[in-house]
Amino acid sequence: MIAPQRNHVRSYRATLGDMSSSPWSTPPSTPWSTPPLAGGPEGADALRPLLGTVLDALRDGATARGGPLPPGGPGAVTAHLRDALADVLPDKGTGAEEALRTLVTALAHGAADPAHPHCAAHLHTPPLAVAAAADLAASALNPSLDSWDQAPAASTLEALVTRALATETHPTGPAPDALVTTGGTESNQLALLLAREHHGPTLQTVCGANAHHSLHRAAWLLGLPQPVTVPAPHGTLDLAALDAVLTDLRGPLLVTATAGTTDTGSIDPLPEIADLCDRHGATLHVDAAYGGPLLFSETRRHLLTGLNRARTVTLDLHKLGWQPVAAGLLAVPDTALLDALGHTAPYLNPDDDTRAGLPDLLGRSYRTSRRPDVLKIAVTLRALGRTGLGHLVDQVCDAAARLADQIDEDPRLDLYERPTLSTVLFRPTGATDHTVATTRRDLLTRGHAVLGRAHAGGRLWLKATLLNPHTTPDDLRELLALVEGSTTR
Amino acid sequence: MIAPQRNHVRSYRATLGDMSSSPWSTPPSTPWSTPPLAGGPEGADALRPLLGTVLDALRDGATARGGPLPPGGPGAVTAHLRDALADVLPDKGTGAEEALRTLVTALAHGAADPAHPHCAAHLHTPPLAVAAAADLAASALNPSLDSWDQAPAASTLEALVTRALATETHPTGPAPDALVTTGGTESNQLALLLAREHHGPTLQTVCGANAHHSLHRAAWLLGLPQPVTVPAPHGTLDLAALDAVLTDLRGPLLVTATAGTTDTGSIDPLPEIADLCDRHGATLHVDAAYGGPLLFSETRRHLLTGLNRARTVTLDLHKLGWQPVAAGLLAVPDTALLDALGHTAPYLNPDDDTRAGLPDLLGRSYRTSRRPDVLKIAVTLRALGRTGLGHLVDQVCDAAARLADQIDEDPRLDLYERPTLSTVLFRPTGATDHTVATTRRDLLTRGHAVLGRAHAGGRLWLKATLLNPHTTPDDLRELLALVEGSTTR
Repeated sequence: MIAPQRNHVRSYRATLGDMSSSPWSTPPSTPWSTPPLAGGPEGADALRPLLGTVLDALRDGATARGGPLPPGGPGAVTAHLRDALADVLPDKGTGAEEALRTLVTALAHGAADPAHPHCAAHLHTPPLAVAAAADLAASALNPSLDSWDQAPAASTLEALVTRALATETHPTGPAPDALVTTGGTESNQLALLLAREHHGPTLQTVCGANAHHSLHRAAWLLGLPQPVTVPAPHGTLDLAALDAVLTDLRGPLLVTATAGTTDTGSIDPLPEIADLCDRHGATLHVDAAYGGPLLFSETRRHLLTGLNRARTVTLDLHKLGWQPVAAGLLAVPDTALLDALGHTAPYLNPDDDTRAGLPDLLGRSYRTSRRPDVLKIAVTLRALGRTGLGHLVDQVCDAAARLADQIDEDPRLDLYERPTLSTVLFRPTGATDHTVATTRRDLLTRGHAVLGRAHAGGRLWLKATLLNPHTTPDDLRELLALVEGSTTR
Repeated sequence: MIAPQRNHVRSYRATLGDMSSSPWSTPPSTPWSTPPLAGGPEGADALRPLLGTVLDALRDGATARGGPLPPGGPGAVTAHLRDALADVLPDKGTGAEEALRTLVTALAHGAADPAHPHCAAHLHTPPLAVAAAADLAASALNPSLDSWDQAPAASTLEALVTRALATETHPTGPAPDALVTTGGTESNQLALLLAREHHGPTLQTVCGANAHHSLHRAAWLLGLPQPVTVPAPHGTLDLAALDAVLTDLRGPLLVTATAGTTDTGSIDPLPEIADLCDRHGATLHVDAAYGGPLLFSETRRHLLTGLNRARTVTLDLHKLGWQPVAAGLLAVPDTALLDALGHTAPYLNPDDDTRAGLPDLLGRSYRTSRRPDVLKIAVTLRALGRTGLGHLVDQVCDAAARLADQIDEDPRLDLYERPTLSTVLFRPTGATDHTVATTRRDLLTRGHAVLGRAHAGGRLWLKATLLNPHTTPDDLRELLALVEGSTTR
């Protein structure tokens, strides 16, 4: 236990924002009081009334919107925001209360709110209140994870949580570890970067046609050859085709498999892919941005069998983890695999400081300043436990199964396939692809529903990605009725 | 004005978290209620008590800490956190209140708090309360800026604010625009990436010895040749040396200048560097991560003369903009310069949606999911106005000038040079570099002060980076007394 230390607390007084002018400058011609800070012992008192304003504005904006998103499409939203704001950078400020009320109300009014059960297009999660509340503390304290002397406790917390989560993906790894990222895209970039540094710039990535677009973009960013794409005719990577590709290619290879595709939520056959990688001497990366939290579910964990055989695993708790963006991770079985990210900047991690025992954090990211996104994750893990998170995963996957039942029972709708995770593809029976696309846009423009879209089996489908654990069977029936009403109108 | 729409509000009820079990699953063996969400009209009510817990924990943690950081060094901080947490991923959760109280108190207790006037090592800003409060709304609403149907109003707000800020850097540009980034590091990466796409992979970056380490790392990340380094013997890029380097090198060149170096806050001679770039046909990037907000100050704007001649400008409002991390930007004079980032993913921006008028957002970042960091920036710009922000900039620069005066007047201390921005280098007279380094670590370990360090003029200096506008002359006198006490003890 660290003893409280009080001898240097005196000069903290100012954080409440005294009303005198600055001790430094000629006061400006208008009355000026230095605005209060979020930190220090008095930061909480400064925040309290402002947060009251934010909560009122969130409620007012959501109530005025009513539905899952504002009607009228981009033109109406832009016009409304311009009306509300006038000048985004005025010469003279309007004060904290007015600015918060105006802008938060406008943003809440103009949101596509994933907490509404008819907002179900994307892997766009409705955050848990507990996670959003924890995130406030990250903003107020503002630790930055590029050096220990900016983030003493936050860096320790990150180390504990990343090890715990990597132990879920790689329970038998010699030293499981994970990096915190801005999301699956950065995690995939890091996976390719680590492989490039291990194998050299001729590294060839091999991925399924079902893989996330960020893998192609990562190869471009890193100056690597574009990925070789393996067919995935039924939504998962075709094993015979992968075998053929790995037989043909020469040089270092990185195979990326997907555990939870964006289009259908499908999971590639991980054990068989890992076997092929072993046989051909290829490295395996698994993008489990969507499916990773199945690890928390007693009844669905088996779907990820083979995940532990990947050298790198992308996780993303701002999908099936109910975190506000960003909450990405890249997990590895051995912390030594991260060594290629090691980096020195004399002002942040000089050798003599490192020798003296100050932790060297720069190798934990390719960013420098870095927000402690790990805090909200840690609070959520502790508040819900593995069991609570697993139950939420089961709830949304069960909801998807029920939605598939409802579609199956409805002769006016076609179901693409039974869902693996929480994504359901469907379409009005007999509709053209054009009708499917316009139905989606019509629901959007009317402010009735936010549905996604996906090509599968040669056709375009409507996509419902269910991430809201509060969604009820009635909500889903109503969602299907909205689709049918829009199509037939 | 968008008319409120109420017909689909019914199923919103669940966001408060009813106490019944899930409609989907067999209830777990222990009583279970689906935890409440942050969004929807009832999200505010769910957040209110949790935020109360967070504010109490922030206050309690900061009060228990007392000083700018906890004493005892990394070992003590780690031991304290381990004691407080026990298991970071328990099977059974402890509930939202307990988790928030425990973890936020521990994080606040173990913080290096930039709101304390003796926490002045890095470009680690104490956030304004108004900015932290706005950031809560971003977490609660969770718009994601990778597609319009996840962020209708947030994407419009981002467009308005980025144009306004880019108009500050490039007032005469044909179509000023900016990308929002995770900080100066990502902005510098993007600057090099855009230049690589324009000039090809043989692009040679040229930067000063005073440039930020992230430029070297960006070249490595992007597979570009390592930057050629030009001497900066007096803290700014040497013009004769730059001329010689540009004369010698062949092929496409990107010169990066710095407006506010990390070590000394110096500003490279921008007009002369721009002239040299013109003469040699080189492209100019300016890293104004630190100095950019001088644009808001009537009395100091002239220090950035020439900034508008850069093709890309790095800004970072989590430094002299008092934002929580992240609040980075990359500004350009013409939005067409960003075209190289254009990217298509069929589930996010299919051609027919774009033709139908849905904005295409994927080319605004190399990330995919993306938090609306622009909200806190927009709220701060509106609350304070250009004048208010300029006044804060002046306050911390004036404080640095006063600190330099105090050091000058003290025969036991040496001043490196008069500050340009808010960074002051000093050292105990006659001390060895080793003493300087151990003095810094001693102040850290005792929990007395967080000071930085920098090499300049062949010696190691203590670095005070003043970003707290509430810091008083007495705070600075006390800080110097702490240094002297530590050195002589």
